[in-house]
This record gives sequence, C-alpha cells and structure tokens, in this order.
Amino acid sequence: MQLKLAEATQILRKTPATLTAMVAGIPEPWLKCNEGSGTWSPYDIVGHLIHGELTDWIPRVRIILERGEAQAFEPFDRFAQFREDQARPISALLDQFAFMRAENVSILQNLNLSSDDLARRGTHPELGPVTLGQLISSWVVHDLSHLSQVARVTAKQYSYEVGPWQAYMSILKS
Amino acid sequence: MQLKLAEATQILRKTPATLTAMVAGIPEPWLKCNEGSGTWSPYDIVGHLIHGELTDWIPRVRIILERGEAQAFEPFDRFAQFREDQARPISALLDQFAFMRAENVSILQNLNLSSDDLARRGTHPELGPVTLGQLISSWVVHDLSHLSQVARVTAKQYSYEVGPWQAYMSILKS
Repeated sequence: MQLKLAEATQILRKTPATLTAMVAGIPEPWLKCNEGSGTWSPYDIVGHLIHGELTDWIPRVRIILERGEAQAFEPFDRFAQFREDQARPISALLDQFAFMRAENVSILQNLNLSSDDLARRGTHPELGPVTLGQLISSWVVHDLSHLSQVARVTAKQYSYEVGPWQAYMSILKS
Repeated sequence: MQLKLAEATQILRKTPATLTAMVAGIPEPWLKCNEGSGTWSPYDIVGHLIHGELTDWIPRVRIILERGEAQAFEPFDRFAQFREDQARPISALLDQFAFMRAENVSILQNLNLSSDDLARRGTHPELGPVTLGQLISSWVVHDLSHLSQVARVTAKQYSYEVGPWQAYMSILKS
C-alpha cells in the first residue's frame, strides 16, 4: 500500500488508545513481565514509545525539512526508558504518551506536507539516505510492531499453562 | 506465570476495547488488507473472534464440567467467518464481539470455579486430554495472538514504504 499522509496520521492517532486498552489496569506482574533476560515488558515498551515521541520522529522530520541530507539524525537511544524512574505508575506513562502523540500528530498535520515533501531526503546515521515518506511510514510500523510485542510478551506468560494447545499457538514460538 | 482466574478474566474483558481501539475507524483498505492469499484481514479476525465466543470457549467449558472426558469438543471451525455477510460494517462486528465477550466472561465468573475444577479434564478432538485450566489459558493466549496478528497484518502494508528501515523491523519478516 502506498503511504497516504491522512491514513498514516489516522493510525498514529489511534495508538495511545490501543495501548491504554491493552495495558492500563493489567495485573502488576503482567505489566512487568518480559520474554527473558534483556527483553522488554509492557511497561518498558510504553517508556520506549514516549522517548520516540520526545527524541525521534518529529525531531527527524524537522531535520529533513530544515537541513536535508546535510545533518544526520541523532541515533535513537533504545534504552532511554531504563534511566527513568521505574516507579512511575503506568497510568502516568500512558497519559504522557497520549499527550505527546496528540501534539506530534498535530505538528505533522500543520506542516501540510506535499508529495514532493515526502520525497525529500535525510541521512540516517546507520541506514544512510532515507526519505521523509519512509520516516513517516516507519513511525507507523514502529507503533504497530510494539503493539504486537505487548500482545506477544503477555501471551508468553501462559506458554506452560496452555498445555497441549501450545502446538497451535505460533505466537508462543516467535 | 500460573493461571489465576481473576487475572485471566481481567485480560479477557479487555480484548473488545483493545480491538475496537485498533480497528474501528481505520481506512477501509486497511480493514480488508491481509498478508497474501489465504491469510486474514483485521475484518476476518474480528469475525473469527465472534465465532470463538459463539461456538468454542464457553461451550467447551460446559462440556468439561458436564461431560468430562466422555464427550470430545466440537472442532473449532476456523473459516466460519467467511460464510457470514461480508458487507456487515465492522462497527456491528465489534459491538457483537464486545457484547458476547461480556456475557461469556460473566458466565465464566458465575461458575465460581475452584482450583480443583481447573484440573478437570476434557477431550480435545485433535489434542486429546486437556484440562479446564488449559482451556481458559488458551482462550487468553488466543485473544492476544489475534491482537498481535492485527498489528502485524496492518504493519506489513507499509513493508515497501519504510524503505531502508525494513532492516530494523522484524515484524515485517514474521
């Protein structure tokens, strides 16, 4: 499917509600569960998405529009969430994410990007030349991949409990 | 993690809101998109979850409680949703799912199952002996696996649009 800005923003705008529906009010052990050492819990994933809003997506959009390929993006710090206060309640994180996402989608819309703009190029510190359209598409896919991860991490907590049904549950093997 | 009935029902109760947040109001082409021939769209997945509520989970709970291992479960018809009217709006499907899930969770709670009950056995037509606890755990994992699937199917629509970022997006390869 071809990137359409109106569709992409519609999906970006839905993520906070989806994440809140999935994560708010789940039992504490589920909130902090993960897939083993070095993997992320639903709590960590929400923290990571907040850092994306702060430092990654819109800042990179601006770099492309203002500096083009001349200035490479800052690398995305994938571990920033672990330096935050780990006692902050998930409700506060979800509210912060929802607030920042609404702001960022509104910034994106106010840029009134044309299809020519979507072809403008920037420089990714590892991947090299990328376009603004690829950046926005990646923002959408990044959201969806972390929603999928929350479901997978949670599902795996019952890997043993499902007994013989494990054979049918490909999510438990991924 | 060990199955706790209160936790499992809490997760089962959340699924309709999560699914609605993900799927209601997404652009029509996204609603009907899939991962290629023979795979399911978000619309198909919601239909499949409805059929689970109708014919699978609670009916199997009852068979275990009333007949034990003597009567094998009916096989779950994984294609029932394709025989429904494909023009029904997604909003109607989501409402139906939410209504049936609320009913079924309430039935489950009113059974006041003890931990002895969770060890009671039934007969799966393919898997053989299973327990009531395994059935309820599988209900939870089945929900989560389809939530993960909705996110994955949607993400894959931008497989090409993300350009070089494809290298970072394991969801696009799964």
